[in-house]
Amino acid sequence: MLDFSSDYLEGAHPSIIERLAATNLEKTAGYGLDEYSEDARAKIREACAAPNAEVQFLIGGTQTNATVIDTLLPSYQGVIAANNGHISVHEAGAIELGGHKVLQLPHHLGKIDPDELREYCENFFHDGNRNHMVMPGMVYLSQPTEYGTLYSLTELEQIKAVCQKYNLLLYADGARLAYALASNENDVTLPDLARLCDAFYIGGTKCGALFGEAVVIPDPTLIPHFFTIIKQHGALLAKGRLLGIQFDTLFTDGLYRHIGESAVAGADRMRAAFRASGYELAFDSPTNQVLVNLTNEEYDRLSEHVIASFWERPDAEHVIVRLACSWATTEADITALEELLASMPASEKR
Amino acid sequence: MLDFSSDYLEGAHPSIIERLAATNLEKTAGYGLDEYSEDARAKIREACAAPNAEVQFLIGGTQTNATVIDTLLPSYQGVIAANNGHISVHEAGAIELGGHKVLQLPHHLGKIDPDELREYCENFFHDGNRNHMVMPGMVYLSQPTEYGTLYSLTELEQIKAVCQKYNLLLYADGARLAYALASNENDVTLPDLARLCDAFYIGGTKCGALFGEAVVIPDPTLIPHFFTIIKQHGALLAKGRLLGIQFDTLFTDGLYRHIGESAVAGADRMRAAFRASGYELAFDSPTNQVLVNLTNEEYDRLSEHVIASFWERPDAEHVIVRLACSWATTEADITALEELLASMPASEKR
Amino acid sequence: MLDFSSDYLEGAHPSIIERLAATNLEKTAGYGLDEYSEDARAKIREACAAPNAEVQFLIGGTQTNATVIDTLLPSYQGVIAANNGHISVHEAGAIELGGHKVLQLPHHLGKIDPDELREYCENFFHDGNRNHMVMPGMVYLSQPTEYGTLYSLTELEQIKAVCQKYNLLLYADGARLAYALASNENDVTLPDLARLCDAFYIGGTKCGALFGEAVVIPDPTLIPHFFTIIKQHGALLAKGRLLGIQFDTLFTDGLYRHIGESAVAGADRMRAAFRASGYELAFDSPTNQVLVNLTNEEYDRLSEHVIASFWERPDAEHVIVRLACSWATTEADITALEELLASMPASEKR
Amino acid sequence: MLDFSSDYLEGAHPSIIERLAATNLEKTAGYGLDEYSEDARAKIREACAAPNAEVQFLIGGTQTNATVIDTLLPSYQGVIAANNGHISVHEAGAIELGGHKVLQLPHHLGKIDPDELREYCENFFHDGNRNHMVMPGMVYLSQPTEYGTLYSLTELEQIKAVCQKYNLLLYADGARLAYALASNENDVTLPDLARLCDAFYIGGTKCGALFGEAVVIPDPTLIPHFFTIIKQHGALLAKGRLLGIQFDTLFTDGLYRHIGESAVAGADRMRAAFRASGYELAFDSPTNQVLVNLTNEEYDRLSEHVIASFWERPDAEHVIVRLACSWATTEADITALEELLASMPASEKR
Repeated sequence: MLDFSSDYLEGAHPSIIERLAATNLEKTAGYGLDEYSEDARAKIREACAAPNAEVQFLIGGTQTNATVIDTLLPSYQGVIAANNGHISVHEAGAIELGGHKVLQLPHHLGKIDPDELREYCENFFHDGNRNHMVMPGMVYLSQPTEYGTLYSLTELEQIKAVCQKYNLLLYADGARLAYALASNENDVTLPDLARLCDAFYIGGTKCGALFGEAVVIPDPTLIPHFFTIIKQHGALLAKGRLLGIQFDTLFTDGLYRHIGESAVAGADRMRAAFRASGYELAFDSPTNQVLVNLTNEEYDRLSEHVIASFWERPDAEHVIVRLACSWATTEADITALEELLASMPASEKR
Repeated sequence: MLDFSSDYLEGAHPSIIERLAATNLEKTAGYGLDEYSEDARAKIREACAAPNAEVQFLIGGTQTNATVIDTLLPSYQGVIAANNGHISVHEAGAIELGGHKVLQLPHHLGKIDPDELREYCENFFHDGNRNHMVMPGMVYLSQPTEYGTLYSLTELEQIKAVCQKYNLLLYADGARLAYALASNENDVTLPDLARLCDAFYIGGTKCGALFGEAVVIPDPTLIPHFFTIIKQHGALLAKGRLLGIQFDTLFTDGLYRHIGESAVAGADRMRAAFRASGYELAFDSPTNQVLVNLTNEEYDRLSEHVIASFWERPDAEHVIVRLACSWATTEADITALEELLASMPASEKR
Repeated sequence: MLDFSSDYLEGAHPSIIERLAATNLEKTAGYGLDEYSEDARAKIREACAAPNAEVQFLIGGTQTNATVIDTLLPSYQGVIAANNGHISVHEAGAIELGGHKVLQLPHHLGKIDPDELREYCENFFHDGNRNHMVMPGMVYLSQPTEYGTLYSLTELEQIKAVCQKYNLLLYADGARLAYALASNENDVTLPDLARLCDAFYIGGTKCGALFGEAVVIPDPTLIPHFFTIIKQHGALLAKGRLLGIQFDTLFTDGLYRHIGESAVAGADRMRAAFRASGYELAFDSPTNQVLVNLTNEEYDRLSEHVIASFWERPDAEHVIVRLACSWATTEADITALEELLASMPASEKR
Repeated sequence: MLDFSSDYLEGAHPSIIERLAATNLEKTAGYGLDEYSEDARAKIREACAAPNAEVQFLIGGTQTNATVIDTLLPSYQGVIAANNGHISVHEAGAIELGGHKVLQLPHHLGKIDPDELREYCENFFHDGNRNHMVMPGMVYLSQPTEYGTLYSLTELEQIKAVCQKYNLLLYADGARLAYALASNENDVTLPDLARLCDAFYIGGTKCGALFGEAVVIPDPTLIPHFFTIIKQHGALLAKGRLLGIQFDTLFTDGLYRHIGESAVAGADRMRAAFRASGYELAFDSPTNQVLVNLTNEEYDRLSEHVIASFWERPDAEHVIVRLACSWATTEADITALEELLASMPASEKR
């Protein structure tokens, strides 16, 4: 059985495991005050061309989003997000637990539209009752999105322009950022993110680490006492070096880039294989996730050989599934999928 | 200038002012432990045919909604509401400040649809990711709604059936309840609300009191230590008798019913006058609010004589305005409006 | 039976009731946007010699403390208060509900000591673990305190100096401020409070109003969007003019001063009468509250004629009780108490 | 230089690192739904003789305390703790961020006293103002305490009796539980904790794991939807098996016991060596922490050879330091300390 159901089924990239083992008996300061964490911070600052950025390592994505958003917004402000964004749907209300409303815009293949964002803000600031309403204070977006799609640099700059006009912070969730950076269609670099965003995070958990997300705050004065805030939110790892070692490894010798590239290359081969056998991609996702629109019959047939994750039912006759590649996806598995699809082409009648 | 812009432009029904003046120098216990409050509670229990109900008096609607909803929901649950509901839009994020997401359903003239509610719940409880999502724990509705429309008894019973199936609490915001109870189209009584709702409030602020909302919890075991919770939410009035005296007055000799009836009768006359002069009601609102769809030309003309409140622009050529009646609306004002409309009929071309 | 158990047993000063009745049928804007509220703000700014101050009217003391403190502190900061302060003990956890720790200092007849405050801050900022601890961000004090005692101007300036050194905000709870201002021992004026405090409130509920507290923020840029914050905290009164009218009345023709002076004069007479008959005051409280240390025998005897409030038992043989004066305390009642005490002197053996 | 400054300076016990490496490429379900986590849960249930217990793995101690306490307490209740307890002092206000007051009792070598607890509750429930105060709802204690001391079984049963009388939940923080279980003075077993506590956690971070704490809830109905709550609090690890593998390893072949025993044996040797050379232990801590009361001269001398952590200054002439043993403390290091102390006895004059 081939399993492409997720990009975090395994542990960590072997380099990380080896490094954790090699350093295991060293004695270091706790709470991220160690030298590995300092080294990782320096490398991330350099990769982002943000020499003064504050970089803090948290453990997981929901935790990071909740801590950053809660910290940056005063009580009366909410965060604008796509209505299928991670914070809108799949964080169990963590943003609201922190006291903030998620102000939802319709998504377009996972993305918010700069014009719709502008219109939302215009309407809000012209509404006579706005002082009785939740004021937008931040835009949240994911790069890549939950659909594996990408914001172009132009789109990000358009969004940033709206943010500047309406005094909104811009925050990017980079849970799968490695796959955005590695996509052939991508034109947004880490320095671009550091230039355009008030805060963003570089995902580790879904990009080769055991766990961990690196929050980058280009202007280090933005969040005073962030260390204590992280502690208060239960997000401070006692043995903080575990995060430092992982991110130091990821940002040494291009490992983070390599992880992204190998996964996207695998996904590209899978997309090509599906197309070659007549299958229909649900839409054109240029990163490590492959979304395929199957007939029920195709779905049943493929499910005997491949584990994919259920995405949604566009209608009673079809199922959209997602296959994901990662650092752990082997050549052998991709080749096996190619052979399977070649031997099992799409149904004629769709 | 005639002013119909709101139903809470004035102070309180004169009976209330008189009673407050008459009792002003009496010494009573504070915090609602006085006899006026006890008397008011007894009268409300009787009006609701809910002899065991806990009745607590809070000061305003947003405060009441926030306190009740925050108290009844555990952290991981949210409250379902119409997307134009008061808690969805006009409470400045008070529900989220308490940690809870407002799960929005589309509104139909202000109401949620029982079938759409059922479908939402079905989808949630069949979603494989539901443990990562905000679980619905309560349905919030307003009677009458923000559009002045009414849930029928059948609709409430259908909603209740969904609540029972999915273990949701049912909570009704009765900020303008007097006008629902007095509407000719209404078939939902206070005892019906007490039978169907886990909690609801009888509005005072917009129904003749200076301020105050009476929360009714038919099962008195539902919220242990509600008194302390009210205090903790800053919602406990030191001189609680002010609330007791007001609600005691409202529920003596049918004053609450009378306030509702006189306002609805006034609104009925206004609706008839608009129709008689060829104006178009935006929709058929059977309570104390009159919503009229005006052409821009009509709007400009009427605005020279009448203050109404802006509701929305359905298109570039029209404006919907709201006129409200209350206990303070005089015969003279209504007659003046009738005469004005008679002399100033609707435009021929709409 | 004489009842001196509290200073808010009655409604409001008759001038306020009259004014509310006289204005009852006027139509005004809601939410404190009316002219009465504007007039009251202007008068308070003038009384405080703080021409730019933001003045907002809230309904009660706990609500005011919770809203102001929650708004002014970031999540990682707590508020320093006396361990018998109102926020420490008698607000049902309202400050913690907003996410903030109350950092308690020992009280000295209700007051915090400037030197102990300084030492607390020194210790905190020298503690190697301070980044894992709640950082002090504000000093809360009451004027007068819960014991009816007063901070002198010198003490307030010493506290302010510590606040400036350690970057703490200073906030004064003036629930009974009228009685402080009227005390013979007082040397702290409203302009002093406006000069020294970042925020304070002028109490209405316990000083002659039906309800209401006027928050004064001398630097109006301190809290952006305070209106929305008040709404979000459920603290915005729909018919805001009720607060405006009350405070406008209190600050017209010296009523607030008069209310304070008459109550303190009454309390002075009561203190003199207790002393003249050999009773022991628990301590020297110079405002409207009289604290008497009674033997059990004295307590039983007086309780047949006078209602006081239980304060505490210093030991098994004694009871401390509190008697309070207000605008509503009559000459007749005070004379009756004087006669009672003259006829019923203290026990010889204490 | 000998470093005894902490028991979490290193990574994890080598068995854990080996196991993580060995399983690294396996594909498993996320979020703790994997078989390693299930196996670990089964072993913990067996070790606790609590066959129905819910066991959930969280990442760190502050996170665990905040999530459990926030979940178990309604808004109006607080948690009683020693005034030097971890939640009282060193969690940056995480409990208050969740909305709850920490009600502090004086500590006695880190422990709360059952009689003082009983008296606190009696006073609360007899206080006429208790409905305006934070109601105690839970007792928090640490085993071992922050001072390395232990509650005896008798003490825990006395505390439990108070909890039962006043309807308080009992929660034990077991951040260093391995060292309690291994102490010669200990008579409290895991089954005792499961019998007496409503919830407790078995510490991993400070007891040989990279990170992780196992929450045990003997009555699995106590917290409905705990999974979602954990997610909402940002405490759900995506690759949950990392926690499962660690705790499965700790509870296989007695590793958790062995880790505790070796550390306590090391600490016993260190205590004996200090005493043999005439040094004074600050108090008798029977677990893995050694607290020594040094003269300033002794402190300076020892600091040239040994890193200990500063504890407190009892007076100007003395310093108390803490030395900690763990699974990573080597025989060689302890022998070196023994030799050092033998060669460098305590000052004659103390």
